[in-house]
Amino acid sequence: MKTKIAVAKGDGIGPEIMAAVLRIFEAANVPLDYEYVEMGKSYFDAGHSTGMTAAAKETIERLGLLFKGPMETPKGKGVKSINVTARKVWNTYANQRDFRSLNGVDTVFSKAGIPINLTIVRENIEDTYGGIEHLLTNDVAVGRRIITRPGSAQVIRYAFEMARRKGYTKLACGHKANIMKLTDGLFLETFYEIAMEYPDIESSDIIVDDLCMKLVSRPEIFQAIVLTNLQGDIVSDLCAGLVGGLGFAPSANIGDNISIFEAVHGTAPDIAGRGIANPTALLLSGILMLRYLGFTTAAANIENSLLYTLEQGIHTGDFGDKAVASVNTETFADAVIANLGQVPAKGEVIAQPDMEVKANHDHPLKNKLTVTSTTTTEEMVGVDVFVESSKQPNELAEIAQSKQTDIFKLVMISNRGTQVWPTGSIFTELVNEYRIRFEKKDGTEITQKEILQIAAELSEDLKVCSVEFLMKFDGKIGYTLAQGQ
Amino acid sequence: MKTKIAVAKGDGIGPEIMAAVLRIFEAANVPLDYEYVEMGKSYFDAGHSTGMTAAAKETIERLGLLFKGPMETPKGKGVKSINVTARKVWNTYANQRDFRSLNGVDTVFSKAGIPINLTIVRENIEDTYGGIEHLLTNDVAVGRRIITRPGSAQVIRYAFEMARRKGYTKLACGHKANIMKLTDGLFLETFYEIAMEYPDIESSDIIVDDLCMKLVSRPEIFQAIVLTNLQGDIVSDLCAGLVGGLGFAPSANIGDNISIFEAVHGTAPDIAGRGIANPTALLLSGILMLRYLGFTTAAANIENSLLYTLEQGIHTGDFGDKAVASVNTETFADAVIANLGQVPAKGEVIAQPDMEVKANHDHPLKNKLTVTSTTTTEEMVGVDVFVESSKQPNELAEIAQSKQTDIFKLVMISNRGTQVWPTGSIFTELVNEYRIRFEKKDGTEITQKEILQIAAELSEDLKVCSVEFLMKFDGKIGYTLAQGQ
Ligand SMILES: NC(=O)c1ccc[n+]([C@@H]2O[C@H](COP(=O)([O-])OP(=O)(O)OC[C@H]3O[C@@H](n4cnc5c(N)ncnc54)[C@H](OP(=O)(O)O)[C@@H]3O)[C@@H](O)[C@H]2O)c1
Ligand SMILES: NC(=O)c1ccc[n+]([C@@H]2O[C@H](COP(=O)([O-])OP(=O)(O)OC[C@H]3O[C@@H](n4cnc5c(N)ncnc54)[C@H](OP(=O)(O)O)[C@@H]3O)[C@@H](O)[C@H]2O)c1
Repeated sequence: MKTKIAVAKGDGIGPEIMAAVLRIFEAANVPLDYEYVEMGKSYFDAGHSTGMTAAAKETIERLGLLFKGPMETPKGKGVKSINVTARKVWNTYANQRDFRSLNGVDTVFSKAGIPINLTIVRENIEDTYGGIEHLLTNDVAVGRRIITRPGSAQVIRYAFEMARRKGYTKLACGHKANIMKLTDGLFLETFYEIAMEYPDIESSDIIVDDLCMKLVSRPEIFQAIVLTNLQGDIVSDLCAGLVGGLGFAPSANIGDNISIFEAVHGTAPDIAGRGIANPTALLLSGILMLRYLGFTTAAANIENSLLYTLEQGIHTGDFGDKAVASVNTETFADAVIANLGQVPAKGEVIAQPDMEVKANHDHPLKNKLTVTSTTTTEEMVGVDVFVESSKQPNELAEIAQSKQTDIFKLVMISNRGTQVWPTGSIFTELVNEYRIRFEKKDGTEITQKEILQIAAELSEDLKVCSVEFLMKFDGKIGYTLAQGQ
Repeated sequence: MKTKIAVAKGDGIGPEIMAAVLRIFEAANVPLDYEYVEMGKSYFDAGHSTGMTAAAKETIERLGLLFKGPMETPKGKGVKSINVTARKVWNTYANQRDFRSLNGVDTVFSKAGIPINLTIVRENIEDTYGGIEHLLTNDVAVGRRIITRPGSAQVIRYAFEMARRKGYTKLACGHKANIMKLTDGLFLETFYEIAMEYPDIESSDIIVDDLCMKLVSRPEIFQAIVLTNLQGDIVSDLCAGLVGGLGFAPSANIGDNISIFEAVHGTAPDIAGRGIANPTALLLSGILMLRYLGFTTAAANIENSLLYTLEQGIHTGDFGDKAVASVNTETFADAVIANLGQVPAKGEVIAQPDMEVKANHDHPLKNKLTVTSTTTTEEMVGVDVFVESSKQPNELAEIAQSKQTDIFKLVMISNRGTQVWPTGSIFTELVNEYRIRFEKKDGTEITQKEILQIAAELSEDLKVCSVEFLMKFDGKIGYTLAQGQ
């Protein structure tokens, strides 16, 4: 029985490279059936605001798997990238990218004889990618960096499962929890919680800047790394650079209902229609997809042929030995097909028995909402009120103190996170936005209304920008202290 | 006339490498006088909570320049890193790190014949390093990423000045403004505003992930790059990896009143006291300091001798050709001294005439507060209320709609930044924290009290976590729309 997936050919070089890849799949007897869907620039132009027809949406949501070529997002206000929207709306929470050195693709690292073979799994929904930003004053912009326990657990569990499937022995968590103690701290804590379920995979963590230093000097020490969204974005493009750039960078966007496989590069308009584009990144994405679906034998078979072909020096115009004539897209695909069954001299991929094919999921009837803990006690303990002001710290403290009540005491004022009251340094430079922290006095209880009331009192003398409740969860404080507090 | 600076020898290998560097300075007739200050682990242990004596603080604030060895921060709760605290409290807003390939220090890139010579300037105060984080629900952590116009202007102006001093012809701005439109958007906008004052320096910008891909494949195309704090942290450690790691990574923390020069590495406790540590990173930091002070001839003289010495294959135990015996710290310094006047075969530094020596600044009498614009019109246009809830979007919308008034209308509900009401997708997965957006109706005006009042109304049925005012500045909206809005 064949598995059915949705295929979108894409724009620009998309149709050319997709045709080449599907021809290779056919020659390798990959057990897939395709339903082609209408998505991309021409559908934007025809008035579909999401860049796809209703039928395409229905097909993708029914089949649960989309293999796509690059798509052009029309420039102009209001039109969102079809790629980003798809990730968010279909909740593809994990972005997986596999990087390996390819014989025949010269890089700084291949010249130094350093082999690269690693996988980056990046959280795909949260972090600053939620795009929740506010100008508090005309001088001060704030973006909210959201990290959640369920969101972290989803992507981390995927990374462990992926590591197991691939036969990896270790997985590292990249993070910046030494600075972002609550957000990345939560990600790191979740990582080690889930690691306990995978005793066969060695787990470790590494600070993201140290990780980048090691990736450019000793990349061979890593097998798989899981990271939050922005750090993962940066690290995965760094790794793409290590193995030869965008022409060799596959990508999978994994969700529980729908997953999307595509190359990282775009539509390369300058060479579109000329039949000379490099199909390798899309083919590698296809190989990733085959493994994800459970067809590991076919994946190994095709990958070995691709590696062998590259090793022979066969190349499209964008890479390889300039002294050797380049071939076009179709000829490159022909070579991979002719070489099916061959194995490369270096880095042969061992064919593993096929895994169980992933079943498509049901269409959900309502939005899935995950709460990881219901037994927690929550207590309100104070409030941070952010205000616009050009006063000196002690002047501001006087105003804030005049608002103290039987329940609230002023405990701290900070500017850009550095405490400026009750103690501070004359050298701390200020912007026109302060945080004023009130905490409840010992033995009192406070209500939501009272918290909002003290903000309202402040608003009589100051311009309030935002209000943040201070909470304790199970008795543990749920906010950070200011630098210097 | 000699210039006086403060010197802290540091802990661990600090005193050894500092002695070596100051001996080289003396031999090169550097016109500096030193006042030694008491800072580091033993001062923490002696009960100084900031890790320095009052006299040390006074000296540093008076002289305005600190040259320091690495210091150990005692482990344990409540003790903040002396390095981080110094940066914040003394407002050293720019972190400069110079990276260059050193003959004799083998790296992947030197083996590939790719020379590296670039400078990273990183904003040192803002971004998520303000450490303003809150747990909104037990599942949802939020960190505030702050980017300000005055803070951005300070570091960007420093980067252009540095580029000019160094004779660079171009400066790039690294950013992620395609995703973080308001925060990094503000940084990028400020970059191009200030660029207009420096027509002699070619300015450009590059998305940070693309930057990292290029840095590991074609680092030679860059001269200087300015970035926000976290991205700058990641990129500068990546660059340290390109040139050989921490042993070769100098660093300057620049402020208007006080600047700090130090190596990036720590106290290396495993080799402390044995006289075998590598003084190169501290020496490179010292060279950076000499240039900053205006002593460019002495800087070039010492740097040429260092490059020549490394080229000769002279090395401490942590790098270089294992077949050649390593030397200890003092012998390495002796070699640099003996080689003063020599120039390396590759990469000779051209001595430039000394610049004007930077004058020490006055002790400020109050905190400096910068507001870049006073003529702006501000208008309140609505509010985002963040609430904890495990309801489905339409249930939540019903509650929120019941709170609408003559002035406020419900316009949008989102979860992790993705719109879920009035339209949304059944596939969007939810966490127990929503954002509810109310905007004022056309033709009405709203007050702060009214904004807080609608939050109070919601608090009757829901747990409010935070309240964010929606503003227009000079008629332009100061907040982002939700993905899908
Ligand atoms: N996931 C996606 O669907 C996706 C991703 C990124 C961009 N895009 C879209 O693609 C369009 C173009 O973006 P862009 O020009 O920034 O990036 P791009 O399409 O990746 O092209 C950049 C350059 O890379 C080379 N290149 C990329 N893929 C290649 C391949 N398979 N074979 C040979 N050369 C290849 C070409 O360089 P030469 O000049 O050397 O030929 C091309 O001009 C935009 O509309 C963008 O929105 C879509
Ligand atoms: N700015 C600062 O003052 C600063 C910065 C970072 C860390 N620290 C502090 O330093 C202490 C130790 O931190 P750490 O062990 O994480 O980092 P580290 O001191 O940089 O040492 C890591 C390793 O790097 C090697 N190394 C570093 N500098 C060297 C040099 N100049 N010459 C030769 N080898 C060198 C040593 O490796 P081998 O094992 O190969 O000898 C050392 O064990 C901690 O207390 C930390 O808080 C201070």
